[in-house]
This record gives sequence, C-alpha cells and structure tokens, in this order.
Amino acid sequence: MVSFADRHIGTTADAQRQMLDALGVSSEPADGSPVEALMRQAVPASIFTDACESGVPAAATEAEALAELRALASRNTVNRAMIGLGYHGTVTPSVIQRNVLENPSWYTAYTPYQPEISQGRLEALLNFQTMVSDLTGLSTANASMLDESTAVAEGMLLARRASKAKTDVFVVDADALPQTKSVLATRAAAVGIELRELDLAAGAELPAELFGVFVQYPGASGRVWDPSAVIDAAHAVGALAVVAADLLGLTLLRSPGSLGADVAVGTTQRFGVPMGFGGPHAGYMAVRAGLERQLPGRLVGVSQDAVGHPAYRLALQTREQHIRRERATSNICTAQVLLAVMASMYAVYHGPDGLRAIASDVAGKAALLRDWLVEAGAGIVHDAFFDTLNVRVPGGAAALVARAHEAGILLRQVDADTVGVAVDETTTVTDLHRVAVLFGGRQERVFGRVGGDSTGALPEALLREDEYLTHPVFHVHRSETAMMRYLKQLADRDYALDRGMIPLGSCTMKLNAATEMAAITWPEFAQLHPFAPVDDVEGTLAMIDQLESWLVEVTGYDAVSLQPNAGSQGELAGLLAIRGYHRANGDEHRTVCLIPSSAHGTNAASAVLAGMRVVVVATDELGNVDLDDLRAKIAEHAENLAALMITYPSTHGVYEEQVVEITSAVHAAGGQVYVDGANLNALLGYARFGDLGGDVSHLNLHKTFAIPHGGGGPGIGPVAAKAHLAPHLPGHPQAQKDVHAGGHVFAGGPVSGAPYGSAGVLPISWAYVRMMGADGLRHATAAAVLSANYIAARLADHFPVLYTGEQGRVAHECILDLRPLKEATGITVDDVAKRLIDFGFHAPTMSFPVAGTLMVEPTESEDLGELERFIEAMILIKAEADAVAAGRWPADDNPLVNAPHTAASLISGEWAHAYTREEAAYPVRSLVATKYWPPVRRIDNAYGDRNLVCACPPVEAFS
Amino acid sequence: MVSFADRHIGTTADAQRQMLDALGVSSEPADGSPVEALMRQAVPASIFTDACESGVPAAATEAEALAELRALASRNTVNRAMIGLGYHGTVTPSVIQRNVLENPSWYTAYTPYQPEISQGRLEALLNFQTMVSDLTGLSTANASMLDESTAVAEGMLLARRASKAKTDVFVVDADALPQTKSVLATRAAAVGIELRELDLAAGAELPAELFGVFVQYPGASGRVWDPSAVIDAAHAVGALAVVAADLLGLTLLRSPGSLGADVAVGTTQRFGVPMGFGGPHAGYMAVRAGLERQLPGRLVGVSQDAVGHPAYRLALQTREQHIRRERATSNICTAQVLLAVMASMYAVYHGPDGLRAIASDVAGKAALLRDWLVEAGAGIVHDAFFDTLNVRVPGGAAALVARAHEAGILLRQVDADTVGVAVDETTTVTDLHRVAVLFGGRQERVFGRVGGDSTGALPEALLREDEYLTHPVFHVHRSETAMMRYLKQLADRDYALDRGMIPLGSCTMKLNAATEMAAITWPEFAQLHPFAPVDDVEGTLAMIDQLESWLVEVTGYDAVSLQPNAGSQGELAGLLAIRGYHRANGDEHRTVCLIPSSAHGTNAASAVLAGMRVVVVATDELGNVDLDDLRAKIAEHAENLAALMITYPSTHGVYEEQVVEITSAVHAAGGQVYVDGANLNALLGYARFGDLGGDVSHLNLHKTFAIPHGGGGPGIGPVAAKAHLAPHLPGHPQAQKDVHAGGHVFAGGPVSGAPYGSAGVLPISWAYVRMMGADGLRHATAAAVLSANYIAARLADHFPVLYTGEQGRVAHECILDLRPLKEATGITVDDVAKRLIDFGFHAPTMSFPVAGTLMVEPTESEDLGELERFIEAMILIKAEADAVAAGRWPADDNPLVNAPHTAASLISGEWAHAYTREEAAYPVRSLVATKYWPPVRRIDNAYGDRNLVCACPPVEAFS
Repeated sequence: MVSFADRHIGTTADAQRQMLDALGVSSEPADGSPVEALMRQAVPASIFTDACESGVPAAATEAEALAELRALASRNTVNRAMIGLGYHGTVTPSVIQRNVLENPSWYTAYTPYQPEISQGRLEALLNFQTMVSDLTGLSTANASMLDESTAVAEGMLLARRASKAKTDVFVVDADALPQTKSVLATRAAAVGIELRELDLAAGAELPAELFGVFVQYPGASGRVWDPSAVIDAAHAVGALAVVAADLLGLTLLRSPGSLGADVAVGTTQRFGVPMGFGGPHAGYMAVRAGLERQLPGRLVGVSQDAVGHPAYRLALQTREQHIRRERATSNICTAQVLLAVMASMYAVYHGPDGLRAIASDVAGKAALLRDWLVEAGAGIVHDAFFDTLNVRVPGGAAALVARAHEAGILLRQVDADTVGVAVDETTTVTDLHRVAVLFGGRQERVFGRVGGDSTGALPEALLREDEYLTHPVFHVHRSETAMMRYLKQLADRDYALDRGMIPLGSCTMKLNAATEMAAITWPEFAQLHPFAPVDDVEGTLAMIDQLESWLVEVTGYDAVSLQPNAGSQGELAGLLAIRGYHRANGDEHRTVCLIPSSAHGTNAASAVLAGMRVVVVATDELGNVDLDDLRAKIAEHAENLAALMITYPSTHGVYEEQVVEITSAVHAAGGQVYVDGANLNALLGYARFGDLGGDVSHLNLHKTFAIPHGGGGPGIGPVAAKAHLAPHLPGHPQAQKDVHAGGHVFAGGPVSGAPYGSAGVLPISWAYVRMMGADGLRHATAAAVLSANYIAARLADHFPVLYTGEQGRVAHECILDLRPLKEATGITVDDVAKRLIDFGFHAPTMSFPVAGTLMVEPTESEDLGELERFIEAMILIKAEADAVAAGRWPADDNPLVNAPHTAASLISGEWAHAYTREEAAYPVRSLVATKYWPPVRRIDNAYGDRNLVCACPPVEAFS
Repeated sequence: MVSFADRHIGTTADAQRQMLDALGVSSEPADGSPVEALMRQAVPASIFTDACESGVPAAATEAEALAELRALASRNTVNRAMIGLGYHGTVTPSVIQRNVLENPSWYTAYTPYQPEISQGRLEALLNFQTMVSDLTGLSTANASMLDESTAVAEGMLLARRASKAKTDVFVVDADALPQTKSVLATRAAAVGIELRELDLAAGAELPAELFGVFVQYPGASGRVWDPSAVIDAAHAVGALAVVAADLLGLTLLRSPGSLGADVAVGTTQRFGVPMGFGGPHAGYMAVRAGLERQLPGRLVGVSQDAVGHPAYRLALQTREQHIRRERATSNICTAQVLLAVMASMYAVYHGPDGLRAIASDVAGKAALLRDWLVEAGAGIVHDAFFDTLNVRVPGGAAALVARAHEAGILLRQVDADTVGVAVDETTTVTDLHRVAVLFGGRQERVFGRVGGDSTGALPEALLREDEYLTHPVFHVHRSETAMMRYLKQLADRDYALDRGMIPLGSCTMKLNAATEMAAITWPEFAQLHPFAPVDDVEGTLAMIDQLESWLVEVTGYDAVSLQPNAGSQGELAGLLAIRGYHRANGDEHRTVCLIPSSAHGTNAASAVLAGMRVVVVATDELGNVDLDDLRAKIAEHAENLAALMITYPSTHGVYEEQVVEITSAVHAAGGQVYVDGANLNALLGYARFGDLGGDVSHLNLHKTFAIPHGGGGPGIGPVAAKAHLAPHLPGHPQAQKDVHAGGHVFAGGPVSGAPYGSAGVLPISWAYVRMMGADGLRHATAAAVLSANYIAARLADHFPVLYTGEQGRVAHECILDLRPLKEATGITVDDVAKRLIDFGFHAPTMSFPVAGTLMVEPTESEDLGELERFIEAMILIKAEADAVAAGRWPADDNPLVNAPHTAASLISGEWAHAYTREEAAYPVRSLVATKYWPPVRRIDNAYGDRNLVCACPPVEAFS
C-alpha cells in the first residue's frame, strides 16, 4: 500500500534510479536504498549518521493521522470565549473559508516577489492596506504584521528611529493588553529602551523626555477615552504617538489619525479569522505621511508595467532586511498574507455598512449587558466602552470566573475584585442573559435578537463622522456568488504550487498536503481563545507537546519553543536566549555576534534587535566560512564574543566540511553557536544541528515542516536549544502551562502575543511529521538532494553551477551562474526569470546569495516530469539568449527582454517584433494545453517607488 | 445584519428598485416590498397567495444553521461498518476531497452540453469510462449510472430491448443484493416483466425462455464462482447476460467481459466516495461491442474541433430522452458526474498497481479473518470469496449482530443462522481481531499490519491475467503535487458558476453556498452505511424528517419521499404512485398519460417506464396547453385516463392562467394530475402545487433547493404527493423506519438502492431552506422572476421574447426567439451560443422548448452587474450578426461562425480572417482582465458519432 511519504515525495523509486544513473551514482549500494550512495557523496562523512531519530514514531497513514487528530480535537472544549484582550469570536464567511483558506491557489502561493504572477494576492493585500489606512485614518498601511503585540513593539522601534527626542524613554499605557506589555518588556530590554507605564486615561502626566508614547484604544479594560491631549503633549516634546486600535471599534469611533496618532497598530483577527488558540492572524500597522519609509514589513504599492498598465508590486524593498541587513528598519520578513487576505475579504464582503452594522450590534449587545448588570446591582468600572465591560465583584472575581467556566462561558479575571466581559459578533443575547444571571441578574427575562443602529456606550464626542472604505471594491461583492467569483478571478491571476514548480532556493516550496490542512478549520482547534483555561485546551497542548518532542529529536537539541510566529522571531528568541545565558553567567559584555558575509540579511537584523553588535566574517571563493578570518575575528573579539550565526547547509547550498571545526572554535572562545535552520530540510535524518555543535537554532515550519507559505505568511519559527539555554527560551506569563516537552521551563520574555504563537496551524506540521515518520523524513531529505543534484548536472553544460562539496555534489539547492550569460549575450537574471513565466514557471531565487545567479531548489515534492520540464525550459532560454548574441533578434527586442507576454499583448494591435507571437507564447508545444497567462507585462519597480501609491487606485486607472 | 438570503440573492434592494423602474413597475406598492407589484402582474391572481408557508421556520444565520447541523451530526454514531451489500468503507484521498468535492470549479459546473467549455470534466469522465471499460473487460462504458440497483434495472431493460427472445422472463440471481431485488421487482412489475429468482451458483437451470439473466459477481453472500456456463446457456437461447461486478474485486478477478457478459453494471462507491448513508455515488454500466447505441444515460466520446484537434463531447445524444421522448432507451437524464469524477480520480491517483494492492490487502484481510474464525470453530458458508464472509451461527445471528453493535461494529444478519462480515480498505487488523473475538476467537493474539500481495480466498481459475488501466493517465499522477495540478488543469479548462452566469432555462443554476456544502464531508454524515441500525443514524433521520416536512409545507402536499436519486426517478415514482392508486381502486386499465407537446422529453420516457401509454396534448401558439385539445383527449380516453403531466410554470416560462381549469378537468374524468416540479423555483412562496390541483409532483433539489449540479449530477428528485397517493410512494424493505413526516407510511416498491436515496447531500437542501426561511424562499422567487423579466425587457428590442403571461410578464425564464435573426443574417442559435463563450458566458438553453430559440434563466443569484454584462454581450452579438448581414464580414468567416476562439488560434500562425484577433478575443474591453479561454474550437459532433471512441485516446492523438 502507498504511504504518505510516497505521495509527498515526487520522484518514484524508478525515477530516482534513472536520475542516479544520470549522475553516475551506483544505484545499488551495499548499504541501503539507492539514494544513500548519493547522500554519502554529498554529506561529509564527519557528520553523516546512519541512525534515524528514534523518538519520531513510525509513519501513520493519512487516515490514521486524521483519526489521531480527531482524538486530540475531542480533548479540547470550545466554550463561549468572552475574555477579549484582542482575541474575539468572529464569523468566518464560509465563502472566504472555502475559497481562500481551503484553496491551494491561495495557500500554496509564495511571497509576491515575482509581482507579474502575483497580481491577485497583491490586489487583495492592497485592499487590506486600504482597509487599514481608511479605518485608522492614516495615509499608509503595510501588508500586515505578525500580531498586535509585536506590531506595538515595532511601533516603539519606529518611534525611536523617527523621533528627534534624544532619550531612551517610551511610555506605555497602563491599560495596554497584558501580553503587549510583556512583549514590549522583552524587546525594550534587548535594545536599551526604558519603559514607563502610566495610567494615561486617568490623566497621568508624561515625563519631560520621551521618544514615544503608546496608547491602547479602547483599553484592555474596555474603557474608551480621548487620547488626543496625551498625543499632543507627546508631539510637543518631539515624541511620536503609537496607538493600538480595535479595527471593528474604528467603524464607529474616531480614527487614530484624526486624534493625531503617528502610528496605528493592532490586529485584524476579528475580521473573520478564527482565534486559533492565538494565531496566526494578521497584525497591522499604519503611519502618517512622512513615515512611509520607516515602516517595517512588506508594503504593496501600485506601479505600472512595460506598457503603462497599472500593476501592483512590493514597494520600497530597499527598507527590508534582506537588503539593509543590520541597518534594516526591522528583522521581519514574513508577513501574515493568507490571514490578511481573509481579513481584507471580510471587509470586501461586508462593506462599510456591513462592518458598521456588526460593530453596532456588538456595541448594542455590550450596552444591553451593562443594563442587565446594573439592574442586578453590579458596578461597572467604566462608563464609556465599545465591547468590553469591567465589572466589580469585590473579592469574588475568581469564584465568578470559575462558575462561568462551569457554565461554558469564559470570562477574564482582571484582579481579585474585577471581572472582564467582552462581547463579539458571535455573542448571542442568550449568552448575555446567562452572563447576567452569573452576576446575579434575574432568571426570567423575555428577549429577542438585538437589532438596530446602536452606538452602545460610546461617548458622543468620539463617534466617527468621516467616511471609509469608499473604494468600489468594498461595495460590489455583496452576494456570495459575486464574492466567490472575485476570489476566483484573483486566484486565476496568480501562480502557485497548484500550477507548477516554484524552485525557490532557500524557500523550500514543498507540498502542503490536503490532509495536513484538514484539521486547522475544525472548530475544536480553530475556535480556542489563547487564554482559555488549561482544561479546555488539553488536546492542543498534548499535540504541542508531541510536536515539541519530535522537533527535539530531529534537531538534536533538548528543548523547543513553538512561540515565535515567524523565522525572524525565532532568530530573535534564539539570540535573546544566548544573551540571557551570558548575562546569567555575568558576561553582560558578551555582545559581539559573528555573521558570515553570505548570511541571510535577517541574521544581522535580528542580532541588532537582540542588542548585539554584528561583526562580519569573510567567506572563501567556495562559499564556505573563511576559517582564517573566523579565527582572526574570534581572537579579536574573544573577550566580548557572544555568538556565531551560521546556516547549515550553507546559504550557498553546500555542506561545509569544517562545520565542527567552526563550532568548536567558537565554543573554545566562550561563544555560543547559532545555527540558522533555513536549510534544515537538507539535513533532516542525516545529521542534527545539536550534534554539529549548535547551541540554538530556529526552524522554519513553513520551509521544512509543510506549513503553507500562504502567499507570504503565516510563517512559524520555533526556537530549539540545548539544555543550558532552555531556561532563556521565551516563556509567557499567560501560558496555560510552564513545563515543556522534556520537563524544561522557559523563563525568557515572550516574543509574541500568544503563548504558543501561531498554534492554530500547528496541526499541519504535526500531521507532516506523523505521516512521514522518521524514515519518511530522511527519505525526503535524500530526494530533495537528489533532485537538486540532478538539475545541477543536467544544466551544468548550459549554466555553470557555483559551489559544490568536496565530491562535487550540491546539497538541496544549486546556484546557476548567469553572469557568463549576461557577459556573452546581454541577457540578465531578470530577463531569464521573467521568461520563465512564459514557460509556465515561477523563477528560482534571484541574486541570492550571489548577485547575477539563480538559486534553484526543486524540493522533494516535484516529480521527474516537472524537473525535466524545468530543465528543458532553462536550456531553451539559454538557446534564446544565444540567438540574441548571434544577432537573430535585436538586443532590445527579443522574447527575453520583453518577457513576460500577456495574452492581450499578443492579440491586440499590430505585431511589430522581431520574433513571432507563437515564439513568445508557446516556446514549448505542451504550453498550448497548459498555458498560464500572466495578467501584466514586466513591472517597473522604480516607477512605483518614485510615485508611491499604497492604497487601491481609482477604477479609472485601469481603463 | 446581513441575512443569508441577502447573500444568496444577487440583486440588492437598490438594484431591484432600479430594475423595476426599467420595467415600469411602480416600485413602492402599498402592499409590501417593491417586487410584490411585479409578482402580482406575473402570477395569475387566481393562484397568487399572500401567506407564506407557516411550517418553514424563520431563517437561521449561516452560523446558526451550522450549529444546528453539528447538533444533528452529534446524534449520529459512526460505527465500523462491515455490512457490505455494495456499500463499503473507503479512503477518500484528501487531495481529491479538497480539490474536487470541496471546489466550486467542479461542483458548480453544469452538464457538459457545451463541450467546448467542459473539456476538463469530459476528460475526467472519459477516464471514468476507460476505467470501467478496462476493469469490466467490455468495450464501451457510459459516464455513470444513478446507483448499482437502478443500473441493474436499466440492464434488464437493455436486455429486453436487445434480446431477440420473445418472452418477458428475466432471471435474477438468488445471491443478488437484496435492494437490487427490490428495485428490480418495482421496475419489472411496471412494464410487465416476469422475474424468476434462481440459485445460479448452485447450478439451478435456466428456464427455456428468457430475454436475460442477471448475475451478482461476487454474490451478496461473498461467494465467488464462475458464471460463464450460465452466460453461455443464456446466449444459447438468445438472452443477454447482465453481470453486477465489484470493481475493486475486478482488479484481481477475471472480468465480466472475459466471462462472456453482455452488460456489466455496479457501483464505484468504494473508489473513494464516502458511503453517505446510501449516496450519492456513481453507478456504472458497460456493454460489449454492438450494444453501444442501447446504452442508457450519458456517454462521453472523442471527436475533433474545427481545426481537427481532438476534443471530447457527449456522444450519441440522439439516444437520450430529451430527443426520443417516449421512444428513448431510458428516462435517465442526470448522471452522477461529481462522484464519477471522484471515483475516476481515485483510479488515476492509485493506478492499476495501487488498486491491485488495495484489493490484495482487502482479500488478504478477509482470508485472515476466515483463518481466525475457522480457528474459533465457526463455519464459513463459502470457500471462495473476495471481501465478504458468510458465517454460520445457528440460531445466534441476531444476538451476535447485536453484540457486535454494542462493540461498535456493524455486521449483517443474513438470516437467523448466518452473519455476514465484509472487509474493506479501511478495516484494520484490530477490527478483524475484534470480530473474531465476537465469534468466539481467542482474545490473546499478536498481529501487525497485513501486507504483501495476496489473492486471499479467490479461486485460481478466476484470477485475472490481463492488463488494465494501461493508459498513461493512470500512471503519471502518482504524487499529491502531480494530482493536485492535474485537477487544477482540468478545472481551468472548464466554465462553472465560479466564473460567471450560467443562464440555463429550466436548469436553474443558482448559488450553491459554501455553508450549504460544509456538512456533507463531516464524518458523522459521510461515513454512515445505508443499512446501519436506527440508533446510529438518529441525527440524519431527524434531518430527513425536517426536510420532508418543509417540502410538504412549501408544495402543499401531504407527504414526501426523498428516495428518488434523480428527477427522472422522482417522476417514475410519482407515476408509479398514480398507477398504484388506480390499481388499488381496481382501475388497472387506467394507463393513459396525457402529456403536452411542450413537455420535457423525460416526462414521456418516465411514463413509458411506469407502464403507461403516452397521449400528446397540443399547445397553443402562446405555449399554453390547448384546452380544447385537452378536453378532446380526455373525452377520448376518459375510461382509461390515468394522469395528466404538466409543468408549472410551463416549460415556456409562463404562468398559465387556466391551470386550475386544467387540473379540474382531469380530476373530473377520474385522472390524477402530475405536476412536474422543474420550475418550482418560480412558484415557491407564491403558490403551491397542491393548491393548484396537483396530486403528485417530483421536485428537483438540484434546481430549486441548491444541490450543486456537479457537472451533471448528483441530482435528487423527491416525490411529493397528496395523502391518497402517499401509501403508493416508494418505501424500502431495508429502511430504518417506515413512518415519514406527517405519519405517512410508504408502501410502494423502492426506486433506488438506498432507502433515503442520496442522503449524503441532503444537508445541502436542509441548510438552504433553514437559512432562507419562508420569507427568503419567497423573496428568491420574486428576485428570479424580476431578473428574467428585466432581461426580457432589456433585450426585447433586439430579440423577440416568445410567450408571456396576460400582463406581458414572463416567469423565471424567458425565451429569446433567434429565428428572425437567422432569417435576416444566417447566424444560428449555435453561433450565438458559441460566441457567448468568447464573451465569457455559458450559453442559455438552446432550442428547448422551441427550436431556434434561447431560453434564459438568470436565477435569483446573479447580481445586476452580471445581468448587465450578459445583456451587453447579447446586444453586441446581435450587432455582429447585423454586420454579417450588412456584408462587413463574409457569412462563412466572421467572429460568430468561427466562435469560440482559443488563445492558440489567435496566436499561432498567420491570421487570415476578415475580422481582427482583437475583435475575436476582446469584443468587450473588460475581457482583457477576466478572459476565460476555451481549450478547443467548435466541436464537430457528427464526426464523433460517426467515429465512436469512448475511452481515453492515445497521447499521440494530441500531438
């Protein structure tokens, strides 16, 4: 019977034998499966292990894994969550769930770095930005943040960069969400910011010097007040005001922009994205004019294509960490695209009237509850509120919350005397009645549905008067039919894994199996509040415990935290653990972080955010760490050495032979070794970071463990460490339990708002490991390495392959050098990448880690047919470039420089090119049957950055 | 807050006001909503009612409906079903579930009558036919049957048509499935066939005269034997052999074809389609060479397009009931396309080796169970078996089955002394052990997984030796990635509701909402065996009871049976009820069925199958029943009058004024009135069939009640009747309960294999009614009528609208007369239909009920934007035709006669047409952004019928 691994791995045993023959690898070694012989050539003998991880159970079938997940799910209890604190019940429109969250055209897409084949999700993200910008009343919003709490932290850092005030003081609203306070504390301590908590709503005065102030609006207590005086006061001393605002509340409340805020942040969770035990959801950030270039994260903008047609693409990429490294505005790479798309579509589907109606309903229900509680004699702490009430129960809060839990309702114990109750879209009047009864309200009451246009208990002066979401896109998709078609039209414009290979070096676009995705929409996993009582979430905690222990097994570490909700956050957490360790040893001065020049830019950016000083180590001409330079740098900084960050296999796609030598040298000097887990999928089952000398690593579940890329998020970046660092891994004051797999207690500060980060999608990685088993994981590694070597070998005559190991093998990816091609023909990496679109491919990674190259990572999931199709395309493209060089086509008019070609460009108007329409569209005959048409021609990036537009353009722009 | 009805209905209140203004209808009548005024014009005052159905509850929100469904689901218990009898546990590959069953591109598609925009599902169906043909060893298979039992009945009728034997005797295998015997009894009695049940395996001799013999292979008892001698004996007397075979078994067993069978039938359920409490699944039928033209149902064939490219389309349509009416081979219209696609993809994904491995696993497990049972001293009834064992437990069968049920295992009580146990793909060895223990086997046993290549207890002489599924399509999609892309590529070729309007008169392509679709894949509904004990299926039975009672309310009848699994079967059941009623009254001679000439062909075909004689009644020039002719025909046949079948509103799309006069005339002559429910969606909430004088009707849940068309099935055709006919509605000997909503007991013979037909998809219609509520259903009717009238009015200047009511209004559809256009320009209905593809539309219904016309039914789900887009397209097409007439383009070279245009035809080669490429592709500017490209040019139907190929053509055919 076929195993899941056989479905996940694209190449069959027959195909693998054929490929090994082509590589000249003896296909029947004495010691195991055919691919083992290749792996022995590729992986240095010094690290190669035969043993598979014993702690990972044997593979389950898809049906068995689903049955186990159902059993885990049945151990969760979905009670009515009225805890609030930034996580609210919401109705995910089924049309969005089915056609976005459950549709591979959306969830298997990559980050839109190739904008010509990403116009659908770029439009959705532009809708998101427009929605955030409109509702916050600020001019520019980015394409999402990781969550609200980290968005506040990024807002703090932005304020520090942008403020002219020369001080390290940042004021925090006493009524901020508790998890936000915790994250701010972690992040501020790392970079020397001094936090001052003040009860701003109560009139506390700002200190004389500050670079920024943070206001929660409405407060965690539910209180609604006017922060404009505080904001004015901050501005008066050169500080910036960062306001975290509830987007649903903003449909009724004056916007942060109108109150003077410089930066608005928050979450879009309650716009149709399930709570998911804490995530993933899309956080947001918007800034006033003048701060655009300070924005962290990704920003979508409008530009134009080669024929002047409006087209979307990522704007201002020069801000990002992959360009600016340690001088970046932030270490964030991944956004939360899939969730941002869902939230934006919630707004598109409901429109401004619908959103206002939902908010009115919420506000009306909260006010009704207030009435019933007052009638019952309860004291309401704040008169003005939107959806959350704090209620006085002197001495009785704990007992009341416990009673409510027994009745199936989750309330918040604010303190011994106060209970918080949050109302949301899903709260019924029956729920309100039951809550009122818990507070002593009368049992007998006649009630129907709440209706009408209510502003509840919002203060008159703060009621919103300006319009928002006026763009037509928020008005025309009102029926489910129209919405379904809009989602389909956008998906049709995009290229995702459901069309073909996305051979992105270092990004690992492997299969996201349907079975893996199944459980994430089950209510038992999706509808949990992150601060639900431990009894309610037993199943999820058990799943997390298993996944932690499996990740420990496969990495050779001792402990894993799943909290970081992106690779960048895992890096930060890992580096903070190293700093925490040094500090605990009294080595406060150990802050130097060595980073090879070939490293991902994120490494450097994260090191800075961990309060470290980056020192670059040279790499040799083979792409390996220059051992002499490393020794010199270690010697130079021995006293202050905190850590070395390396990636293994290297970012050049090779297994460095001397890795153990490197890690030993660092240890000898008292430093810690950080192994970037970006390429773990080339090692799994054959060697373990912990055994190579690594002390800590982050993993990318969206690379190695099958979390879908979602068009640019969610990402998950667990941090794994040896026992001595475990106490410094991120804990969380609101976590349901302190002890993690292996008995470790994590006492570092939290790096994300929710205790277990993006817990809602962890069933995906759980299912992946469960269904692959130890053998399947090892086989996947070998299959990935085989495919990369096969491509390298087949293309070597056409494009030089940079960097191989001692036996001439690459790891799981190969770098094709296009510089000679450019030299000879004038055809650039960009031309080749865009021409690949005409062939029906997503381009490989461009110019990383070496400018002028393509890094190809086929992953284990592609079958031989698709590999051959890619090889054929690359060879034909080379031939086209040669034809340009030979003068058959002019240098400025050939299928390469004009790529990609839209259908309209081939059909409309006269054809005045040196090549034929057919040569443009169908360079390979099979394309006639399978053609993917890009919706726009090549996009002019510089034009968009010169003419920055980051919200929906008027419809007329397209006519 | 927005209601579900607001999402289901495309036109907003604003849009409706605007449309009513255009129609000149005062938009604010004194007596209700604006559309009421229009409805008062359209619906005759004599039948118009103000009252909404009181029995349908007020609308639930989508979230509420899902919560109620979850509550119903929780009342079902999914035990391990080992009952067999043609329904087996199966693993639906998640990649197929997600990308077919849960993907609107597949489930919202229409029957592929427009083949140019249906190539994806036609390819999938050709795979299905190839699969069935290969496995059965017969030359031609059709595109699916409704279920196994009705397929056997159709096989019997085919044998009678094709046999030269002059006799009414048909021999039935004593080891046939019990439900098949019941269905055969119903169907044979209706048309005067005499059934003889014989124990063929035991060597019973055939009677001297018979026209056919039916063999179950393997038998219901699990027995495997060689029927070739029986088949030879039948052939010797001119009879045909019909064999029902288990497709999974056929991967190991000699094929029916190789044993001499003329016809093979069965089910493909266990190829990845959940049991669903009995359906829907795809039945199958295959025939030997020479019987192709006798095949009932739909048949896909290969033809070629205008440029000679291979292309698929429905073959031999002249056999079908819409052409041949009472002389048709069968009354079947709908097939089970969505389920056939799933089953075919199961074969594509597993391939022959995978299927054989699954079958071997099943056979091996069954043999292992046999060993354990023998060890325990149990007697096994048959030595040779595939997956099912009959076990002797003298006097103890009932007790053992009850004990097994308590242990969570469902076995079959064959008789007082015998228990049946069926093994399937999902059975674990632990299950086998538990079964063995129930039969007295020992508790202690060490076992692992069963593996290896086993043929279990199959007799050597019947082992299969020939190859099957050798076509490449069954060999290349082996990884999930490859499978996902294949499904996407096929879907990309097709046009479904997710792209745009499908304005098919009489077919009602309304929204299939995602919420409606949600519950059908929940295990609690999907994994139920149709003969599970009543305790296990309480939730489903409660849902069915509610749905029955709601359908009673909205139709004005007294009782509803949900058993018929297609409209045609509902018709048959209704007519059989009428016959049963007459018989019970001693009126055996009442067999004349009056049918207006404008009726659906199915009406006549069904009447024949119910044993009636069809007498055609004329219609007048307005499309109404010709009252004078009706009176004359009634007078002529008064003595023998059984029934009148009418459609209301009429197939001409108007509310006939005299309907009550018509029904009264029939009643006065002692006849019964059958109202065809095809157009119920134009009446719902405004009038009820029962109140118009109807005695019985079938409804089409896939038209009026939101079951998706699925590309040509599933259809569901409940039959609703007045109390006097209720006892004659279809019952079922194996049903869990006899009493239906309203306390009625149905005692007619069954018309489908499962007691509740396609119960697995009933949650869709349940959710539709629950979320619309009585008001929503009424509003939907009005919105549909408004849209049809709006299109009629807007297009009236360009195309004459045939048939309107007394106040000039149409009902829910309008007939555009294209005969004047053809007269003036030479442009045909076909040209217009194919040109609509270039505009991004599915054509309306062509030449029904009047040749040379298009019948347009926009349904209530389309919004005004889409209606306007259609109107614009039709006006522009008219202008193009005028341009041909004016000589701007030649009659044989213009965008209409050459439509549709593929991308390749516009791009490849020279352009030698009188119009431009741009005029061909983008007659409307907005198409540049939303273009749907058909994969082939116009298809030559006649070529395909002359050169009949109904299995996958070799890959070279496409090169």
